[in-house]
Amino acid sequence: MLEKTTKMNMLYDFYEPLLTDKQKEYMALYYREDYSLGEIANLRNVSRQAIYDNIKRTELLLEKYEGKLYLYDKFIKRKQLFHKLDEKMKVEKLSDRSVLQIIEQLKNID
Amino acid sequence: MLEKTTKMNMLYDFYEPLLTDKQKEYMALYYREDYSLGEIANLRNVSRQAIYDNIKRTELLLEKYEGKLYLYDKFIKRKQLFHKLDEKMKVEKLSDRSVLQIIEQLKNID
Repeated sequence: MLEKTTKMNMLYDFYEPLLTDKQKEYMALYYREDYSLGEIANLRNVSRQAIYDNIKRTELLLEKYEGKLYLYDKFIKRKQLFHKLDEKMKVEKLSDRSVLQIIEQLKNID
Repeated sequence: MLEKTTKMNMLYDFYEPLLTDKQKEYMALYYREDYSLGEIANLRNVSRQAIYDNIKRTELLLEKYEGKLYLYDKFIKRKQLFHKLDEKMKVEKLSDRSVLQIIEQLKNID
């Protein structure tokens, strides 16, 4: 569950601008501020089921955008390569082939 | 016009997965294969105006996505930084502050 929350938070970060105001509001309360479905329902004076349905639909929408644009996926790949680069740079020379290879890989992620 | 075409091609590259099949088809014919509006109209047996309207709407949609996600903008920034990095790496040491600064800037583009 924690892993799912982390991933959903990241997807929300990337694709938030594509959501409606209501979708943004419920997602922010649920995923960022950790309100429960019941608490959001009370807060907004709608049924718990309505909140649940809205958030579920938004989650599917975020997964759909990720399936098309891969922004989260590319972000993770880039992060891993930068980490590798940092490690290499501690021990290798700048002109070392392995350093240059990592930079080439980074360039290939658009 | 050439500049506009180049930018529209790039926006199309980034946001193509978010378009409908028809939008993709007309954009590909017009921007990638350089057909004229009249030629596409003949090819698809619809009016030139219908093709024009469809492509105009798609262009606005691509600009709207760019205004929300900035994928093209980030791509250009990354490209410029990699170029700067390449130049620096020809003359500086790996541990040089200016090299490290560029890598930090790259990391900050998600």
